[in-house]
Amino acid sequence: MEVIRSNFKDNLNKVYEAIEESDFLAIDGEFSGISDGPSVSALTNGFDTPEERYQKLKKHSMDFLLFQFGLCTFKYDHTEEKYIMKSFNFYIFPKPFNRSSPDVKFVCQSSSIDFLANQGFDFNKVFRNGIPYLNQEEERQLREQYDEKRSQANGAGSLAYFSPNATKCPVTIPEDQKKFIEKVVEQIEDLLKNEEKESLELEPCTGYPKGIHVETLESDKKERYIVISKVNEEERKRREQQKQAKEQEELNDAVGFSRVVHAIANSGKLVIGHNMLLDVMHTIHQFYCPLPDDLSEFKEVTSCVFPRLLDTKLMASTQPFKEIINNTSLAELEKRLKEVPFSPPKVESAEGFPSYDTASEQLHEAGYDAYITGLCFISMANFLGSFLSPPKNHVSARSELIEPFFNKLFLMRVMDIPYLNLEGPDLQPKRDHVLHVTFPKEWKTSDLYQLFSAFGNIQVSWIDDTSAFVSLSQPEQVQIAVNTSRYAESYRIQTYAEYIEKKHEEKQAKRKCTEDSWKEMERKRLKTQCTPYVSPTRYYCVNSFTGTSTVGKRSMSPIQEETGSDDMEEGDGQDSEYDQTDYCVESLPDGKKRAKKFKKIKTEQVPAGSLTSSSTGIFEVPETW
Amino acid sequence: MEVIRSNFKDNLNKVYEAIEESDFLAIDGEFSGISDGPSVSALTNGFDTPEERYQKLKKHSMDFLLFQFGLCTFKYDHTEEKYIMKSFNFYIFPKPFNRSSPDVKFVCQSSSIDFLANQGFDFNKVFRNGIPYLNQEEERQLREQYDEKRSQANGAGSLAYFSPNATKCPVTIPEDQKKFIEKVVEQIEDLLKNEEKESLELEPCTGYPKGIHVETLESDKKERYIVISKVNEEERKRREQQKQAKEQEELNDAVGFSRVVHAIANSGKLVIGHNMLLDVMHTIHQFYCPLPDDLSEFKEVTSCVFPRLLDTKLMASTQPFKEIINNTSLAELEKRLKEVPFSPPKVESAEGFPSYDTASEQLHEAGYDAYITGLCFISMANFLGSFLSPPKNHVSARSELIEPFFNKLFLMRVMDIPYLNLEGPDLQPKRDHVLHVTFPKEWKTSDLYQLFSAFGNIQVSWIDDTSAFVSLSQPEQVQIAVNTSRYAESYRIQTYAEYIEKKHEEKQAKRKCTEDSWKEMERKRLKTQCTPYVSPTRYYCVNSFTGTSTVGKRSMSPIQEETGSDDMEEGDGQDSEYDQTDYCVESLPDGKKRAKKFKKIKTEQVPAGSLTSSSTGIFEVPETW
Repeated sequence: MEVIRSNFKDNLNKVYEAIEESDFLAIDGEFSGISDGPSVSALTNGFDTPEERYQKLKKHSMDFLLFQFGLCTFKYDHTEEKYIMKSFNFYIFPKPFNRSSPDVKFVCQSSSIDFLANQGFDFNKVFRNGIPYLNQEEERQLREQYDEKRSQANGAGSLAYFSPNATKCPVTIPEDQKKFIEKVVEQIEDLLKNEEKESLELEPCTGYPKGIHVETLESDKKERYIVISKVNEEERKRREQQKQAKEQEELNDAVGFSRVVHAIANSGKLVIGHNMLLDVMHTIHQFYCPLPDDLSEFKEVTSCVFPRLLDTKLMASTQPFKEIINNTSLAELEKRLKEVPFSPPKVESAEGFPSYDTASEQLHEAGYDAYITGLCFISMANFLGSFLSPPKNHVSARSELIEPFFNKLFLMRVMDIPYLNLEGPDLQPKRDHVLHVTFPKEWKTSDLYQLFSAFGNIQVSWIDDTSAFVSLSQPEQVQIAVNTSRYAESYRIQTYAEYIEKKHEEKQAKRKCTEDSWKEMERKRLKTQCTPYVSPTRYYCVNSFTGTSTVGKRSMSPIQEETGSDDMEEGDGQDSEYDQTDYCVESLPDGKKRAKKFKKIKTEQVPAGSLTSSSTGIFEVPETW
Repeated sequence: MEVIRSNFKDNLNKVYEAIEESDFLAIDGEFSGISDGPSVSALTNGFDTPEERYQKLKKHSMDFLLFQFGLCTFKYDHTEEKYIMKSFNFYIFPKPFNRSSPDVKFVCQSSSIDFLANQGFDFNKVFRNGIPYLNQEEERQLREQYDEKRSQANGAGSLAYFSPNATKCPVTIPEDQKKFIEKVVEQIEDLLKNEEKESLELEPCTGYPKGIHVETLESDKKERYIVISKVNEEERKRREQQKQAKEQEELNDAVGFSRVVHAIANSGKLVIGHNMLLDVMHTIHQFYCPLPDDLSEFKEVTSCVFPRLLDTKLMASTQPFKEIINNTSLAELEKRLKEVPFSPPKVESAEGFPSYDTASEQLHEAGYDAYITGLCFISMANFLGSFLSPPKNHVSARSELIEPFFNKLFLMRVMDIPYLNLEGPDLQPKRDHVLHVTFPKEWKTSDLYQLFSAFGNIQVSWIDDTSAFVSLSQPEQVQIAVNTSRYAESYRIQTYAEYIEKKHEEKQAKRKCTEDSWKEMERKRLKTQCTPYVSPTRYYCVNSFTGTSTVGKRSMSPIQEETGSDDMEEGDGQDSEYDQTDYCVESLPDGKKRAKKFKKIKTEQVPAGSLTSSSTGIFEVPETW
């Protein structure tokens, strides 16, 4: 179902209902771009730490607009033994709702826009008819504006309506405006005397009348003017209430699509995505709050907004799937999961909802991608049931069999850290076979192969034009390589550990310089100004949700009772290159051995996160991927 | 006429012809936004210097995309005594043309997008079917790439085709790829032996064959593969030439819309715009080179790209029009110029070109706005003819009557500097009645009125939340105001001169700090790297134009022989607020007096630029506007 600005309000309850009744949800986003800085390959270096990856995506991917949001809800019908799904495809656009509302600027990346254009994406629908939204802080500010206006209106018996930014102290009327004010006062006095006239339309200004109703309206041309009407106390109150209800509705309209995200968050339902790190980051950034500076804070915020996540790309890249699934891009995964040993899930569209035909539909429509993601999850979950004795055909979204995959988001192209662990510290693989090499910008991969030709097989991960990580097959050779480079002039080699340490030092130095320069500026500025400067942008922490949705509230603290061990995520494959070179997993399954191993440990519970504990999990997390 | 990617090449000669035959051109651009920083009112402070205004627009307006370019050519038919016009409406989009082409990122401002959406702007046409473009540096790089490829292909007798980024030295084949290479060599040898096979399609790789033709093709799925064919020397040469011609065409396609801008520049024709500073800046920035750092350099570049400009907003705001035209926004100006003492110009569409109906058409389609701008120019130019004895009905674009308006772009909302003078130094009005005031961010305009209530009428120009310029009616009071504020705690007052001096100092200090921090960084970085860092972005100077257009070339040095004195410009009114509060000129014409004054000085020539000289111009440039 297509949801745009004009049919959003009428369908919101349908959306709420679908979320509430569902067993799980699948989501997907389409963005106006992927990276406003380095190329995707530099953005996703094979030896990024989770912290580095988060920082890079935060810095280079958050200025784009999430302008299409796909939501697909799945509800299992036990008697019919099939899933009923409801698919929603939301078009999103931050249309300014009034003069003082935020005027959002977002970046578009030509290659992403061109890619979507080739898929038949309808940009006019986004820009002309996208649903607006507010993040939590913007919603709070707007609510405050309304409250302030209301308290001013109720205060002191008089009916003064100030514009939101007006001061409360009496205004000194400038000489040149006195005439105008006198004329207005005259007109109002005239209205009060005149029995036939019921209201009066003033030219733009602020009025101070008493015993009458004052309303600021906006003309078709967006010019604001004041309407003054004579009313008794009862009628005045009725109008006030009417006005208040209208304001609440305006507020809800402005919060717009964020209400859907609040409903998803408040439902506590399992949320499925494919390669979903960017989707999660964008959703939080756009509809909740600017992303926090630290990865650990991001994990906290995420656990509030999405208490249970599952990334189908991580799932497909993990045992027992890893060995029988070669290509984990969404399109290929969907095809693979239709074949043995998997079975295509039984899924039907709910009545009144359009159905998708997986044989003909276009990928990269968010609603469709969310639907496919859900199908993949069902197939893989059901496959896990085949290992049980007796085997089960249906594995529900609540089964402990899928818990190991919770809250771990696929880290694309990282060689030795499979996922971002939302429930604890991340894996810290030893990188004692990795070298950091800097060289002239003319160098190509072949130059590096030549340089290291004495060291057997190497693997090159480009960082930028003049540096790369080179991993050797034997860690013992690392020091030899560093030593031989000591007197080289055109290039320099250091160990991964040295590189990390220097990077840390530079960060500290940079921070210090910025502080120094800021202090200097501040000193100069204070000479000429009188109030200290306070940064207007501040991270706003999401702890409680304002109740704009109709669904039941629930605790938003990170869910402690649920543990798991095997998940990952990332960008949505909008950039075809993004999915093309997906992380390659080894193939060649050994069915028997795998099944045996699984049975042996399948009753154990898995503590979240740490490297040692996860290696004893139901489905193992390999130390190096 | 609508010009999009698919019909661009077919119509390019029509565009060239229209430009070449025209008497003058009118242009207009539509952008994806106006300001990515301060609000429009802060971006256009009443006491900006031309340098400040340029810097602000460069910093805050250039990351948007000029995505619709209107060009309207006007040719006078002396026998029919009417203009024949040809209007073109180009949709522009930087579609990446291959894998190594620039992936442009541009910003969208929600309010601007929403405004255009409400005007029925077709975003799908831009994103799906916009014409690509390259700036001069990108064009040069692409040309170099092709040249390099070609010289490699011709070199050493062998037919090695390297990918553009490959090194020239022999590649050491890694152990794990040897098998693959051996197999390819085998296949090629097999092809050479086999009489029946004529060509062979290889998996993606680089080949080293001899005596055969090698071609890299791209599949529908954008996968590249190699086709190897057996050909004799003659056939090989023919194919090479074919390939070269194809490459030239690809290059032309990539340069795309920039070819139209080159043709406009090379034509040397008078180019008309309304409030055109932003249009000019964007056109240069997008199709020629990143804007230079200094205003003086910008003036130089502009004189190369647009040797003769005329801004109808500046013209309408200048004597003799100033006194009889109240509102200079494009829509209002067009209406005003249909009435006495003006007469609507006789303009007809050329055969095969659609005509516009000024009574019903929508503004803010670039082609239509350009057309209206041309109409306004004709009306105003012809009006000047009425002052001649004997009066003339038609004043051509070559008449010296309009020269005073050349190369002066309207400076929007600047109180005392009417225009940016492209041909010399800008006006430097005394601002000895202006104060710079800093205060707590809670302060409103009314607080400032109160603070200065003892000083009579004042005028407030907000800079940001905590500062504003306040101009007093009497310069003598400036020092009194500064003195009385000496011990104030919550606010601070300084003279305009003091403010400018401190700002200059701060700029120097900031520059120093940035340099220091950069040196520190560099020191640290050099410890870990081996090649000095060279900034990849460098201002590329436009001096000669690469000959991609078919029209005649001309010298691009700043035109010295033409002088003038009365012009201005700015943003295109896409933001309705932008035009709403256009600079107000006094009305109440005194026809006779004006006419007399004009006649007295009309034969004098006016040297460009300086305040003293321009005050003796044909149409006076007032010292304060």
